[in-house]
Amino acid sequence: MTSAPATPRDVRVAILGCGNVGAALVGILGDRADALSVQSGARFVISGIAVTDLGTERPAHVPRGLLTDDAAGLVADPDVDIVVELIGGREPAGSLVRAALDAGRPVVTANKALLASPDGVALRTLARERGVDLLYEAAVAGAIPLVRALRESLTGERVHRVMGIVNGTTNFILTRMGEQGADYATVLAEAQSLGLAERDPTADVEGFDAAAKAAILAGVAFGYNVSDDAVAREGITGIGPDDVDFARRSGHVIKLLAIVERSGADGLAVRVHPALVPDTHPLAGVRDAFNAVFIEGEAAGELMLYGQGAGGLPTASAVVGDLIDATRNLLAGTTAPAPERKPAHLVPEADLESGFYIGLDVADRPGVLGAVTSAFGAHGVSIRSVEQEARPEGRKARSEGREGGSDGARLVFVTHRAREGDVRATLAALDGLDVVERIGGVMRIVGAP
Amino acid sequence: MTSAPATPRDVRVAILGCGNVGAALVGILGDRADALSVQSGARFVISGIAVTDLGTERPAHVPRGLLTDDAAGLVADPDVDIVVELIGGREPAGSLVRAALDAGRPVVTANKALLASPDGVALRTLARERGVDLLYEAAVAGAIPLVRALRESLTGERVHRVMGIVNGTTNFILTRMGEQGADYATVLAEAQSLGLAERDPTADVEGFDAAAKAAILAGVAFGYNVSDDAVAREGITGIGPDDVDFARRSGHVIKLLAIVERSGADGLAVRVHPALVPDTHPLAGVRDAFNAVFIEGEAAGELMLYGQGAGGLPTASAVVGDLIDATRNLLAGTTAPAPERKPAHLVPEADLESGFYIGLDVADRPGVLGAVTSAFGAHGVSIRSVEQEARPEGRKARSEGREGGSDGARLVFVTHRAREGDVRATLAALDGLDVVERIGGVMRIVGAP
Repeated sequence: MTSAPATPRDVRVAILGCGNVGAALVGILGDRADALSVQSGARFVISGIAVTDLGTERPAHVPRGLLTDDAAGLVADPDVDIVVELIGGREPAGSLVRAALDAGRPVVTANKALLASPDGVALRTLARERGVDLLYEAAVAGAIPLVRALRESLTGERVHRVMGIVNGTTNFILTRMGEQGADYATVLAEAQSLGLAERDPTADVEGFDAAAKAAILAGVAFGYNVSDDAVAREGITGIGPDDVDFARRSGHVIKLLAIVERSGADGLAVRVHPALVPDTHPLAGVRDAFNAVFIEGEAAGELMLYGQGAGGLPTASAVVGDLIDATRNLLAGTTAPAPERKPAHLVPEADLESGFYIGLDVADRPGVLGAVTSAFGAHGVSIRSVEQEARPEGRKARSEGREGGSDGARLVFVTHRAREGDVRATLAALDGLDVVERIGGVMRIVGAP
Repeated sequence: MTSAPATPRDVRVAILGCGNVGAALVGILGDRADALSVQSGARFVISGIAVTDLGTERPAHVPRGLLTDDAAGLVADPDVDIVVELIGGREPAGSLVRAALDAGRPVVTANKALLASPDGVALRTLARERGVDLLYEAAVAGAIPLVRALRESLTGERVHRVMGIVNGTTNFILTRMGEQGADYATVLAEAQSLGLAERDPTADVEGFDAAAKAAILAGVAFGYNVSDDAVAREGITGIGPDDVDFARRSGHVIKLLAIVERSGADGLAVRVHPALVPDTHPLAGVRDAFNAVFIEGEAAGELMLYGQGAGGLPTASAVVGDLIDATRNLLAGTTAPAPERKPAHLVPEADLESGFYIGLDVADRPGVLGAVTSAFGAHGVSIRSVEQEARPEGRKARSEGREGGSDGARLVFVTHRAREGDVRATLAALDGLDVVERIGGVMRIVGAP
C-alpha cells in the first residue's frame, strides 16, 4: 500500500442494497469525503445503488437519482471499480458477487449467510484466482476489527481457541435474564419491542446466526473451510430459571458462545451453545447487545475484541474500513492476503468436549448419591464437584417427582471436561433412575479443566 | 500485498536486543518457520542479534554464533533486509533506527520511549521520506492488535475518544487494592516480588509509561504529533483507602487511564490519571496485569481491545505481526499507510475537563453544607450530587481535624464535568474553610455528563 497521492483519482463504487447499512454507508461517504480521500488515496464516487423496490421511502440523504432496480446491470457496468454487497442472504447476492469477481472487481460484503455457505468457499477461491479482494470485516461482529486483526496482526500466531459472543439479540436476552431474573419469554418480547429481535426470532435464538459466524471464524482464525451447516448448534430457548439460579449462585453468567478450537493434530471443533462463563472472565462483562470475541493464541496469550455487532452505522463503519483497504490495494495493484484454506477435519458432535453443570432433583434417602454417581462413572464422565443444596423456592410444586417430590434434595454436579456423547448417555441413564425426580438444568462451563 | 509465492525468498532480519522479547522472537522465528513463511512469502533468516554483553547467560535456543556486540555494524550490513529494534530507551536505539531507515531498511520496534519522544516524530518523517516501513504494534499494549486496528480498520472512522488501561503494573496494583482491600505499599511489594513491578517503580506508578503510550495513541488514533512530556500526568501513589471505599460503595473500580480525546474544533486533550470507572463499563472488567483500550468512534460506536500488555511472548507476537507486514510490503514494493501527522493543539492542563468525586470530612453543625457548596459555586464547579454519610470506621482517629474531628460528618460530592483549574481552586478554597476538617479523597470519574 502506498501513501495517498496529492490528487486523488475517482474510484467508482456500486452499492448493492440500501437498508440500514447501505443508507449509513451512503451517509458516511458523503459526510467524510475529504478524510476518506486522504486515507484511501481516492475520491469515492457512487456509481449506483441497487434496490429491489424503487418506490420504498428512504432517508433524505440517499440520492434518488442513483437508485436502480437493475443490480446485475450495475455490477456489469465497466466503469464500476469496486462493488459493495449489502443485500444479505445467499441469492441473488451470491450471483452478483460472483459476477463482480469474475469481472475482476474487488468486492466488499457484510453477508455472513453467503460467506458461511458452501458458495462462500467458491467465491473466495474465485477471488484468489482473479487476483481481486473479497473483504468482509462487517460479516462477523459488525464494527469490531476482528477479521483484519486475525488476517494481519495475528497472522503469525498459532491460535488455539476463539470464543465469541457474536449475536447481540441473544446476548441482550441473556443479560436481562441474568441481571433482572426475568424469564425468557418476557425478555424476548421486550427485545422484539425494542427492535433487537425479529418477529420470528429463530435465526438468533436457535443459534443459526451465531453458527454462520462460527464458520467464518474457523476460516479467518484457523485457515479452514467450514460451512455453517457443519457447526454443532444449540440455542438459548431451553435456558430456564434453574440455570439462571445456578449461574448466579456459582459466580457465572450465561452467554451464547460460538467456539472454534483446535483438537488433536489437525482437528477442529466448531460449535455454538450457551455456556456458563465465570464472572471474572472478560466475556462475562459483555452486556446487552454488544459482541466480543475472545482469542487464545500461543504467543499472544488472551486477547478480546469488543464492540457493536450490528446496526447500520457500526456495520457501515466496518464496510468503510474494507472499502479503503480495497481501494489502496487497487491503486497499488495488490490484494489483501488471502491464503489458501484447507478443508477442516471437524470433530463429530458426540466427541466435542466441555465441562458440564448438571442439576438433579433426587429423592432424599440413603444410597441416592451412590446410584447417581455410578451413572456418571459408567459413562466415563468424571465428577469435579457435587453439592447438595436446598431446592429453590417453589421447586417442589414444579417437580414432576415420581416419588411425590415433597421431601427431595437437589444435587448439583460439575464435571471435568467430558465428551458430549458420554454426557448424553449419562443423562439418559440418570433419567431412567427411580431416585432421580427431575433433571433440573444442564449447561456447559467455560474454563473447566 | 500479494499472496505467498511458491518458493519463498530469504529475508534477512537483524535483531537489536536480546532480553525477554528478543529471546521470545528468536524462539518464534525458529518454531514457526514454516507457518511464517506461508504467511509472509519469505523465509526469515536471522543475520545477527546485537547485545551489550556477549557474556550474559541466554536461553538455550538463542544461537551463540549470531550474537554480536556491534549493533551499528549489524545495522550497516548491506545484506540485512529488515531491522527489529528491541533495545528500548531513547539511545542508542534512536541512532540505530535512524541509521536503518536512512539506509532504506524497514524497521519494526517495540520502543515506546523512543516513539513517544520528539525523536519519534523525526523518525516517522524519515521513514516516510525514505519510503520504508516503521512499524510499532508492540510499543502500545503489547500483543493487542491496536495500532493496526486504528491505522487500517478504523482509518475511515472519526474517533472521538480513546481511553486505555495501558500499564499492567498499576492495573495489577489497583485490582488487588480494590478486590482485597490491601493498601498500596503492600500490593506494590507483592507486585515487585512477582516481577510485575521494578525495584524503582516510578515509571509505572507515576504514570510516565502510560503517558508515553498516550502520546503514541494520539498519533495512531487521531493523527497528531504529541510527545510524552506534553501529556498531563498523575500516578496512583496518592490513592488511599477513602478512594477505594468510595469506589466500592458507589459501584466503581479505580483504573489508571490514558485518555486522548478531541476538544473543540481542532484541540486534543491528552492525559493520564486514575479514575473511577463504573462497574458496568467494559474497562472495569480488565483485571490484574491485562491491558485494554476503549475507543469511541462516530460510526463504529464503542469498541474495546483487550489483551496482554507486556511479557516476552505477547510482545514478540506483536513484533512478528509487524515483521510479516513489513516483509509482505517489502516483497510487494509498498509500505503500510503512514499519513502525515499534524502538530496537536493540546488543551492546557487547567482546561482539561472531568467529573470529580470529592470526599470531605466536615464539622457537623448548621450552615456547613451552605459554606461548602458556596465554595464549589464560586469557582464554577457544578454539583451533580451530594450525600452525607457516616465516617468510615477508624476515620476519626486518622482525622487531623482542626476542631477535634470527633463528631464530624462525611460529605461526598460528585460534580458535573468541570475544568481542572476550577476544581483545584475549589479544593484550595475548601481547604481554607474552618468547617472542613479534611479533604478525604479526590478522584476523576469516567462517564460524568
